[in-house]
Amino acid sequence: MYTATLTEQEIQAKIDLKTKPLGALGALEKLAFQIASVQNTLSPQLLNPHVIVFAASHGIAAQGVSAYPSEVTPQMVLNFIGGGAAINVFTRQHGINLLLVDAGVDYDFGQNEKLIDAKVGFGTKSFAQQPAMTAAECRECLEKGAELVRNVHQNGCNVVGFGEMGIGNTSAASAVMSRLLHIPVSECVGKGTGLNDAQLLQKIEILTRALELHAHAGNDPESVLATFGGFEMAMMCGAMREAARLGMLVLVDGFIASVSYLCAFQMEPSTRRYAVFCHQSNERGHRLLLESLEAEAILKLDMRLGEGTGCALAYPLLQSAVAFLNEMASFESAGVSQKTD
Amino acid sequence: MYTATLTEQEIQAKIDLKTKPLGALGALEKLAFQIASVQNTLSPQLLNPHVIVFAASHGIAAQGVSAYPSEVTPQMVLNFIGGGAAINVFTRQHGINLLLVDAGVDYDFGQNEKLIDAKVGFGTKSFAQQPAMTAAECRECLEKGAELVRNVHQNGCNVVGFGEMGIGNTSAASAVMSRLLHIPVSECVGKGTGLNDAQLLQKIEILTRALELHAHAGNDPESVLATFGGFEMAMMCGAMREAARLGMLVLVDGFIASVSYLCAFQMEPSTRRYAVFCHQSNERGHRLLLESLEAEAILKLDMRLGEGTGCALAYPLLQSAVAFLNEMASFESAGVSQKTD
Repeated sequence: MYTATLTEQEIQAKIDLKTKPLGALGALEKLAFQIASVQNTLSPQLLNPHVIVFAASHGIAAQGVSAYPSEVTPQMVLNFIGGGAAINVFTRQHGINLLLVDAGVDYDFGQNEKLIDAKVGFGTKSFAQQPAMTAAECRECLEKGAELVRNVHQNGCNVVGFGEMGIGNTSAASAVMSRLLHIPVSECVGKGTGLNDAQLLQKIEILTRALELHAHAGNDPESVLATFGGFEMAMMCGAMREAARLGMLVLVDGFIASVSYLCAFQMEPSTRRYAVFCHQSNERGHRLLLESLEAEAILKLDMRLGEGTGCALAYPLLQSAVAFLNEMASFESAGVSQKTD
Repeated sequence: MYTATLTEQEIQAKIDLKTKPLGALGALEKLAFQIASVQNTLSPQLLNPHVIVFAASHGIAAQGVSAYPSEVTPQMVLNFIGGGAAINVFTRQHGINLLLVDAGVDYDFGQNEKLIDAKVGFGTKSFAQQPAMTAAECRECLEKGAELVRNVHQNGCNVVGFGEMGIGNTSAASAVMSRLLHIPVSECVGKGTGLNDAQLLQKIEILTRALELHAHAGNDPESVLATFGGFEMAMMCGAMREAARLGMLVLVDGFIASVSYLCAFQMEPSTRRYAVFCHQSNERGHRLLLESLEAEAILKLDMRLGEGTGCALAYPLLQSAVAFLNEMASFESAGVSQKTD
């Protein structure tokens, strides 16, 4: 069956004929345009929304780059399973399905129906000493992430958000971003979940030395992910790439998810039109990253939590964008006079 | 019955013991704090939410200060009644009750069960020639607004948003703001719903001359509202003041609603703790106004529509703030380790 592709003009015309001044719904109009374009329809729908949270442990956490001890990663996974974390609250609020994935936590959770076992290992190695993972492990992450997304897509989902949990992963993400965007790592870091100034300086020093150590490692995104990344980051990257390939809307959460998206984007630039950036934190690195992607986030709530919380909180605004496109009257149907020139 | 007042420390402690880094929910934490404080409980609830949209016609519109003709005001009221405007879509989406109020539209709507008749007149006079309304009309607006809010409060509502419709009312709002904050009117204006540069210059010139014409009018907020304001602005001001007096959360929409709030605030500074600023537009005047109130808006979506749309779109974030406070696990209950020093 041949489906004609909507032109940009057709979508924009539907938006512009709604009973409001031209452009008056601002960012919601851009969202509506993007969603209609991705779904190739003037009557888009958000179906069976999911947020997938990937968790993994990081060898780099042993170097003291985080304000929290490494055991918080499995503790928070248990908190997700128990329904008590922020992402549980916000996905419940908006009727979003939450999937929890053990991408490589240093803990044996046993069998648990609320946790998807995609464990690639018991945490990465410390990239301060050696590559975080092998090329084979990175490849396994990418494939497992893609498989997870194929499953939710088969269940009728057309919009999926991605979040993460992993003590130490802001360090991993800063190193990946620095290498991929050729930006000094000091501009890619932030205080994470609560470092003080001295700890931040120490984090920058550790990362600078690690980047020097791996100066001759490959610069393609898959190699950079393997050298500095985390299992959750690589799995998220594979998941995002597959979601875009399947024509789904890809909701990108905070800094770590955005760096994972950067990898997917460098592997496959065509992912760009599917990506919706949900929350921009105050961290300098995140601002620079979104600028490099020419992306504007929907929310700026000064959060720094991850877990996919930005995706869940932005979701009702996606629904609003779809709703105004589908439900608002046009000037003609409502008998409202248009602008005078 | 004596109800002990919660201390700030008690509220902050509940927020800080949730399983997230300190402050990691950013603006949502400030919202949760404010709502708990206003409701004087650690388990706040949002009950029977309303958005009230006030519509009125403006004499100043005849001076060519708007991109749209004056008849759009009654046409849009009919669109609200028909359910086809943006505010209809967004309030339906979030289960918010929408009340439509004819504060003084230059049109006879007859009897209509979906429109509250609070008409003070068939539009204001043009403040380019004379005061927009009499002191008695302004007082009538303030009282009718208060009465409306008492009614929704009696129905169990504890959170109410305010929006407006009135071609020409950005001019009225800019003049009121300029006079009340002693800021040149050229810094209080914007392109409204779509003026070009030449039209904007003309608008500034008309407003500058009008402010000179009324240089000796009273400078108290009630006099300034009567001289330059609109029936919808004055009614909204009375409604906001009463909502705060009744301990309700007051959701402030865009520029015109914010100027109406400024009047309420200058009449009664104690309204401040009840006010939640929902959306900051890109208009310079709105930024300056929020700065003067030391207010940070929840959303920055580059909208310029009014109608209470910002209130409706921000409402799920108020629900999220309440939900995390009530539903998230604490470090202790979830067995999660706290930050290391």
